[in-house]
Amino acid sequence: MPTLRVAVVGASGYSGEELVRLVARHPELQLTALTSRSLAGRLVGETVSGLPRSDAKLTFVDVTPADLPSRADVFFLALPHGVAAEYALPLRKAGKVVIDLSADFRLKDPAVYKEFYGHDHPAPELLKESVYAMPELHRAEIKKSDLLACPGCYPTSILLALAPALKNGLIDPDTLVINSLSGVSGAGKKADINLLFVELNENMKPYSVPKHRHLSEIEQELSLLASRPVVVTFVPHLVPLSRGMLTTISAKLAKPAAAAEINALYQNFYQNEPFVSVKDKDSLPEARHVTRTNSIEIATRVDPRTGRLLLFSAIDNLGKGAAGQAVQALNVRFGFGETTGLQE
Amino acid sequence: MPTLRVAVVGASGYSGEELVRLVARHPELQLTALTSRSLAGRLVGETVSGLPRSDAKLTFVDVTPADLPSRADVFFLALPHGVAAEYALPLRKAGKVVIDLSADFRLKDPAVYKEFYGHDHPAPELLKESVYAMPELHRAEIKKSDLLACPGCYPTSILLALAPALKNGLIDPDTLVINSLSGVSGAGKKADINLLFVELNENMKPYSVPKHRHLSEIEQELSLLASRPVVVTFVPHLVPLSRGMLTTISAKLAKPAAAAEINALYQNFYQNEPFVSVKDKDSLPEARHVTRTNSIEIATRVDPRTGRLLLFSAIDNLGKGAAGQAVQALNVRFGFGETTGLQE
Amino acid sequence: MPTLRVAVVGASGYSGEELVRLVARHPELQLTALTSRSLAGRLVGETVSGLPRSDAKLTFVDVTPADLPSRADVFFLALPHGVAAEYALPLRKAGKVVIDLSADFRLKDPAVYKEFYGHDHPAPELLKESVYAMPELHRAEIKKSDLLACPGCYPTSILLALAPALKNGLIDPDTLVINSLSGVSGAGKKADINLLFVELNENMKPYSVPKHRHLSEIEQELSLLASRPVVVTFVPHLVPLSRGMLTTISAKLAKPAAAAEINALYQNFYQNEPFVSVKDKDSLPEARHVTRTNSIEIATRVDPRTGRLLLFSAIDNLGKGAAGQAVQALNVRFGFGETTGLQE
Amino acid sequence: MPTLRVAVVGASGYSGEELVRLVARHPELQLTALTSRSLAGRLVGETVSGLPRSDAKLTFVDVTPADLPSRADVFFLALPHGVAAEYALPLRKAGKVVIDLSADFRLKDPAVYKEFYGHDHPAPELLKESVYAMPELHRAEIKKSDLLACPGCYPTSILLALAPALKNGLIDPDTLVINSLSGVSGAGKKADINLLFVELNENMKPYSVPKHRHLSEIEQELSLLASRPVVVTFVPHLVPLSRGMLTTISAKLAKPAAAAEINALYQNFYQNEPFVSVKDKDSLPEARHVTRTNSIEIATRVDPRTGRLLLFSAIDNLGKGAAGQAVQALNVRFGFGETTGLQE
Repeated sequence: MPTLRVAVVGASGYSGEELVRLVARHPELQLTALTSRSLAGRLVGETVSGLPRSDAKLTFVDVTPADLPSRADVFFLALPHGVAAEYALPLRKAGKVVIDLSADFRLKDPAVYKEFYGHDHPAPELLKESVYAMPELHRAEIKKSDLLACPGCYPTSILLALAPALKNGLIDPDTLVINSLSGVSGAGKKADINLLFVELNENMKPYSVPKHRHLSEIEQELSLLASRPVVVTFVPHLVPLSRGMLTTISAKLAKPAAAAEINALYQNFYQNEPFVSVKDKDSLPEARHVTRTNSIEIATRVDPRTGRLLLFSAIDNLGKGAAGQAVQALNVRFGFGETTGLQE
Repeated sequence: MPTLRVAVVGASGYSGEELVRLVARHPELQLTALTSRSLAGRLVGETVSGLPRSDAKLTFVDVTPADLPSRADVFFLALPHGVAAEYALPLRKAGKVVIDLSADFRLKDPAVYKEFYGHDHPAPELLKESVYAMPELHRAEIKKSDLLACPGCYPTSILLALAPALKNGLIDPDTLVINSLSGVSGAGKKADINLLFVELNENMKPYSVPKHRHLSEIEQELSLLASRPVVVTFVPHLVPLSRGMLTTISAKLAKPAAAAEINALYQNFYQNEPFVSVKDKDSLPEARHVTRTNSIEIATRVDPRTGRLLLFSAIDNLGKGAAGQAVQALNVRFGFGETTGLQE
Repeated sequence: MPTLRVAVVGASGYSGEELVRLVARHPELQLTALTSRSLAGRLVGETVSGLPRSDAKLTFVDVTPADLPSRADVFFLALPHGVAAEYALPLRKAGKVVIDLSADFRLKDPAVYKEFYGHDHPAPELLKESVYAMPELHRAEIKKSDLLACPGCYPTSILLALAPALKNGLIDPDTLVINSLSGVSGAGKKADINLLFVELNENMKPYSVPKHRHLSEIEQELSLLASRPVVVTFVPHLVPLSRGMLTTISAKLAKPAAAAEINALYQNFYQNEPFVSVKDKDSLPEARHVTRTNSIEIATRVDPRTGRLLLFSAIDNLGKGAAGQAVQALNVRFGFGETTGLQE
Repeated sequence: MPTLRVAVVGASGYSGEELVRLVARHPELQLTALTSRSLAGRLVGETVSGLPRSDAKLTFVDVTPADLPSRADVFFLALPHGVAAEYALPLRKAGKVVIDLSADFRLKDPAVYKEFYGHDHPAPELLKESVYAMPELHRAEIKKSDLLACPGCYPTSILLALAPALKNGLIDPDTLVINSLSGVSGAGKKADINLLFVELNENMKPYSVPKHRHLSEIEQELSLLASRPVVVTFVPHLVPLSRGMLTTISAKLAKPAAAAEINALYQNFYQNEPFVSVKDKDSLPEARHVTRTNSIEIATRVDPRTGRLLLFSAIDNLGKGAAGQAVQALNVRFGFGETTGLQE
């Protein structure tokens, strides 16, 4: 029998919908509340497909932050940055566990938040208890925190690809160049002309250069991994698929290294991680390999002509890049098997 | 009245089809022969849409290289590398003008050809007369040559984006990292499981790393531009659209420079080029802006946090990346207005 | 030298953009005004790609109906129904030629307008001078009218497919069943969640059944063709491509007929029509055959097992289904060659 | 613990891959053999994504029909028609349960097979024991048969939409017109130019008219439902999505009927079916609602203007249209819960 009552706050966006699907099929979780201003009063089964009939009959509600805490034990916040903090404050005051998918609690330094998000941090007092909730990097801290800040999709695809290289000093961080391609669901579910089918089909483009907001958390975590400040070039691109994220990274090798040796180091680094798959020398990540999963595929290549290490990763931006990773963090926090509810 | 008789050799592939369309609407050209082994005997109008009725009634023929020269004055070769040279030899012997879209005559050094293409160069004696037929970089030589080697699609998107920076010493060539995204038509029209709709729709992937064949011509031309040997990192990706190519480049600035200054230098460099458009500081290239055109869009950005210059370009891989550029080269060679037959 | 000054009113939608492209390349037309409330003050080249540089420098203006007449000789209205009439009234009062792409002047009977569009006809006094501007069916009337009501995209694909059969009494009109598939641009350029890439990619659906608004003009014209009232079943579907429309029609044959005979009748019916192509027995219409053209492909098949005639057609919903047909009507009205500016 | 050993024969096509995924996650099934000529020796995890690690390590084998029976208890055949029978014969001789996804055992009459498939039936002696394995229509027979012939994707989407209407005499069968739209995976995984991404993206087309092979089984089952011979018009179309099938049907009502009444009859007919969902009057089926599920959505509409009933259905052609329905049939045959392994 499910033991934990779960609410999804902001359940009408793409990450919110995916959370609803994952919570509904998780054997230890019971979906007790779904909030959405725009869909209040409507059945969730009308907008989220593939739900069991019992869950499909739940109704979206529009709840104020103050009325929220009684609805569940754990709260996923799938809200815009700035708004998430408004909901987190009363929930934390009531002693509830908050798993936030926004950017509000990812950065340790409120000054960096202000630099990248353009306004003062809405709840700096909560930053000391929040954890950057990427299980592969911060599993121990996740177990002890009640405010889990789930990483962004770009950072997830980048940090997991770089962690072994930086921790082991394989590359010169000052030479890091990162290019990422994102499916359109990463831009959210907004009535915006720029997100129309006709505007994006048979199209692709870079955007938010040279200073995308996710750079702030990427550099915070890369600096932790490298034990020194890291500043990188990062170029995101929008490409015409619904779900998927592909990242390609290059950096100068700190010293010459054999391709096989580096790949073995990666295999070893992730050998106990259920959701990380390091490809061998004959294959490269593809978006479809990980669609609708919580997995990440990583590949390493050495370019002897330039002395650079090339790294590649693929995730589903709504899976490991958002809702999947949030459920994985919940599993870690509550001591469920880490893959519970997340296997195909 | 059209003055020049034109043949398209290998007219059943995607570049060949596009050449047929462009030649058919070019006021100075008359399409006199279309060759295809697989489609011999069939009307071109059945496979190439949008042709005037007179051209649509032409029939594909299967002609041996020896029988080819009498069919036209100018010959576009849209054939695989290795095969193109077999056709170029008798055509050049007969004094015909050859505009080759394969890789056979792009490289000056047959040893580099062998390194990248895996076999001896099939006609090294023709290399001394061939010209790398990118009008923006080699216009004067194109006018005097009867063997025009049209650049590949990736090289086109890369070289035009980098020419002003390298010629003016703005960047350190050793720090160059190039990422390109290609629509699927760039992979050709082959009965290959990997090119099926279901394999590529909702998918994307890097491929041919770290040593894609086009690196050979990219580095040859970059070295000319920089007046020193240049070796680069280049990562091509396949993305789910039919036509389009997007390139993102980064390199360390040789010395600090203002964004506006660099953009002005680019504007100035290309001010007389009819097909090059340098975007301003508020916009970035998009694939759809140039679909079905011979244009390239370029944008420049300075990243002050890392001291890097970012360059972006967009072309249609079948337009400026193949058939369009080939017709532009023909226009230069024969003294037609350079945009003849190439404007929307 | 262009002789006719043309304005495009409502130039920011998909039909408006396509009109701008077509007018810009038409040798007899000069684009003198482009109106758009949302884009007023911006360069048209920023939103419409592929324009000659001179046209790309035109600026969108926001003009009241009263100030409009002096701007041009001919006015294309690419506005929502109801709004178009507000602009048509002062333009017609000023003696200008109006080519309207909305539904406002397609129906002869204001009561039918009210039934299908839900409000009183905004300018019933203009209906007596308006012509249903499908050149293949109403060429003579178009030449004499100053208010051309361009057909909708669905009606175009349906009426041209049915005209020969109904005029020749080949089928029983009471058994007509029509299914159409439309690319997404047919739904317009609106900031609507339902038109987002993620909502429509990998999706398809029927909509507006059983009484889509276009039924009103479809039945008006079918009744004229059959010389008796015709009421039909029509099911439109949305499919994931940007441009294209495919229609499949079935009806009982009025009497047994050979497939070859019917096809010959169709070939003959359209033999002088430059934009209508009747396929032979070995091929069927495909959307891509007519993309970015003003052409329609039609095929006929007899199903001897059921005694039904099957008809198929393909158009580009923005080409023959909207902007292309509007320019074709202009050509007819002003005595230009009918294909002027409309050939690839 | 899984109790039943299962083999997938022909596991490299799209239906085969989907079967592998479904069997792998089914709690009562153990995957013991995967056959593929082209992939023999390779790991299944290389081509089928999302498998548990234990299953991903299975290797494709190339087994002759004679060597097959010992490998499992139940055999899914995902082979071309004609070939399936070659494998079914020795398997049935060995007493194994065969669940065939080809057309070989769907038709009761070998003469009809020859008419539609162009060659003699390869194993007519097996037809008397085979069952048309659509659980909603033939559940009792499935329980008792060892040769289950799974319906085609088009027939599934059509028969379930029509069963309540025909069984209850709501419509005149002679007026049935059926239009279906299929995603590209329905055409199989073949190295065929016509299935390339570039040929199908931004394209759509009708095909196989007027006599698609699936008509044979459609009419066999419709005749059973109507208790009289039924001959119908059926037009399949290919549309640019990977997975999904949408069917639109119209027929004259046998007598006037209220929309609400018909919808209630449908709701009632399917009230105990776990995979059939009848939409209410405010919504219509969409392909994405059922993607990657074994569900079918059905909607009914009355068109009072023409006296016709309109029926709509949506399935995933690889789910309820192929692999999902095959597993559902297995569940029925072996007495597992019918939804076992098939719920999201």
